[in-house]
Amino acid sequence: MVPLPVLPPVNSAHRRTLAPIATPDRLLLGPGPSNAHPTVLQALARMPIGHLDPLYVELMSEVQELLRYAWQTDNRLTIPMSGTGSAAMEASLANTIEPGDTVLVAVKGYFGLRLADMAGRYRANVVTIEKPWGEAFSLAELENAVATHRPKILAIVHAETSTGICQPMEGIGDLCRQHDCLLLLDTVTSLGAVPLYLDEWKVDLAYSCSQKGLSCPPGLGPFTMGPRAEAKMMARAGKVPNWYLDVTLLNQYWGSDRVYHHTAPVNMNFGMREALRLLAEEGLEAAWARHRSNSELLWAGLEALGLELHAPAALRLPTLTTVRIPAGVDGKAFSQHLLTKHGIEVGGGLGALAGKVWRIGLMGYNSQPENVDLLLNLFETELPAFRPAVAPAAVAA
Amino acid sequence: MVPLPVLPPVNSAHRRTLAPIATPDRLLLGPGPSNAHPTVLQALARMPIGHLDPLYVELMSEVQELLRYAWQTDNRLTIPMSGTGSAAMEASLANTIEPGDTVLVAVKGYFGLRLADMAGRYRANVVTIEKPWGEAFSLAELENAVATHRPKILAIVHAETSTGICQPMEGIGDLCRQHDCLLLLDTVTSLGAVPLYLDEWKVDLAYSCSQKGLSCPPGLGPFTMGPRAEAKMMARAGKVPNWYLDVTLLNQYWGSDRVYHHTAPVNMNFGMREALRLLAEEGLEAAWARHRSNSELLWAGLEALGLELHAPAALRLPTLTTVRIPAGVDGKAFSQHLLTKHGIEVGGGLGALAGKVWRIGLMGYNSQPENVDLLLNLFETELPAFRPAVAPAAVAA
Repeated sequence: MVPLPVLPPVNSAHRRTLAPIATPDRLLLGPGPSNAHPTVLQALARMPIGHLDPLYVELMSEVQELLRYAWQTDNRLTIPMSGTGSAAMEASLANTIEPGDTVLVAVKGYFGLRLADMAGRYRANVVTIEKPWGEAFSLAELENAVATHRPKILAIVHAETSTGICQPMEGIGDLCRQHDCLLLLDTVTSLGAVPLYLDEWKVDLAYSCSQKGLSCPPGLGPFTMGPRAEAKMMARAGKVPNWYLDVTLLNQYWGSDRVYHHTAPVNMNFGMREALRLLAEEGLEAAWARHRSNSELLWAGLEALGLELHAPAALRLPTLTTVRIPAGVDGKAFSQHLLTKHGIEVGGGLGALAGKVWRIGLMGYNSQPENVDLLLNLFETELPAFRPAVAPAAVAA
Repeated sequence: MVPLPVLPPVNSAHRRTLAPIATPDRLLLGPGPSNAHPTVLQALARMPIGHLDPLYVELMSEVQELLRYAWQTDNRLTIPMSGTGSAAMEASLANTIEPGDTVLVAVKGYFGLRLADMAGRYRANVVTIEKPWGEAFSLAELENAVATHRPKILAIVHAETSTGICQPMEGIGDLCRQHDCLLLLDTVTSLGAVPLYLDEWKVDLAYSCSQKGLSCPPGLGPFTMGPRAEAKMMARAGKVPNWYLDVTLLNQYWGSDRVYHHTAPVNMNFGMREALRLLAEEGLEAAWARHRSNSELLWAGLEALGLELHAPAALRLPTLTTVRIPAGVDGKAFSQHLLTKHGIEVGGGLGALAGKVWRIGLMGYNSQPENVDLLLNLFETELPAFRPAVAPAAVAA
């Protein structure tokens, strides 16, 4: 044996003696993460297997196939990225943008702004059109912008988690085909919960997350790419300027070659496989209808309490409801009260809606009438204490 | 209520009816993933909490602090990236390279090649020096290359998973300081298992993975950046050309501001917190000694069976052993036999060592004498059947 070198002393300044983890069971009714299905959580706790094990390869195919079902697409290149939804968002841009390409981003909330930021990092000529946070784009508005700017990619968010708005999709795919433009759609807060027909809508690129509608914890980013996007990617002059998210390499691992790219997050994929299995068992129509009916319960209940919903009824997302914080109420104080006293998380506003709305999520496993009742009851009984005291003079008047 | 639009029919071509997940318990003695500690797996199955929940914020601080201990660094910017080790590898380059920067990569195996590939995607002027797969660089070789090429970054792999070689670190940090060059170190197969003293070694950038020495499943990529690397990042002319891995943004979430960047993979971080807690409980010296002694058992046992180890004794990694496949043996057939008949995974060679070696990992939770005994016993009893039959003539001679 070669004698071991004498080691320098170990510095214990950052060593900590901690108790075992003891996080509480919260009810997560904010914009995400949402609660995961108990069956999915049990799958995460399975012992890992190798990422090139034949049994794992089979599981990969199952995940791909069930993602195609959930998205209603035949796209060959349908895989979960080994990062959160934001990584899948970045993958949709990194693989398809070449420097100087015009990318048109239709911004109507926080995640549209993120798309624009990301696209710029890939040296696109980024053009944005904007709508107030709480509205959707009309087909005419999009048509006008596409005809004016002639983009290579039109990027738009289907389900804006920051505003609770669902973008109507009719005609957008045809518009993009007419102008030889790729259609990129953010489905983070719609996959598994809100009607989505990628192929019928002629969507070329889409991404989502593992939590929310799929009831798996956050950590994977479903990604799909149609033949037109694939052709643009394959024709690019240089390598994709992002190694980790390079679909030309990932395709060799997820495709029939199974060439090692990176060590897959196998346990997260165990969870994803179970989440998608449960969704297929329930059926898309049933899952969509469940989300719709529970949200309608929520909307009716909130309005019955005199609260105002930020999104117009025709554009409301069944997964994420924006509720206007009544005048004089400290919205943050109420949501902190819900968290600390009742273990229920409700989100605050982001960006233009910061301080103006609460964001209530009913997604995946959490979309249950019992959760709606529980929350409405707390709004009814506990919100009044957070309303400003009415001044006696005003009462007299 | 707004009437629901009539939905097109759902296509069930990709719908699958699957049985609940039933992956087997394998013993993963390859290059990774390795088995996770049962306590870590139980943590993964906890119900998620919000990524801005005060309890999660506290957990983030614990993870950061324990990573500093494991790496022996005081670096403020020490965080797990929300992707696998390869994402953390890419983060170390993406944040610090500006177009045209010379990056010197010392290549002595597969992961050195990956560093060079990634650096090129960030438009570095990539210069490589190479050694055969199974050797390490001498300080003089590195000194000569740094003096010649004057790089902004020297990137080198501490523990080459493809060859089983541990790079001696003495003097490299001083060399880099003398030439005003950042030292970037791959510690994927050393963190938690092999002596590592980042600050003492004057390492400016390092990354690792959540599995292997840490005994958590793959999915997170520990990342750390010292003050010199931070200064280079903060002085860059434009945005970091990778949004997901942008440390200037991530720092606002992991730092004292806690500004939302992306939805954290909370369950993976539950596991990471437990993995690091267990490592701190055992203590670095004890964990390093355990890995060393179990590997010595393995090395002695393999050599007693007449097998040759590919790495010279003085450079051998305690985590990953490369064993030469004896002449005439179908290495892949033997490892498939181990997997299918005994549920034990052993790796094959990568790149220049493909078909030439087996790769045996004893990492983290798996570094136990019982596993060594089990594997040695199988090599002794079952490998002979895979050796070529000796021709009678040869016996006579």
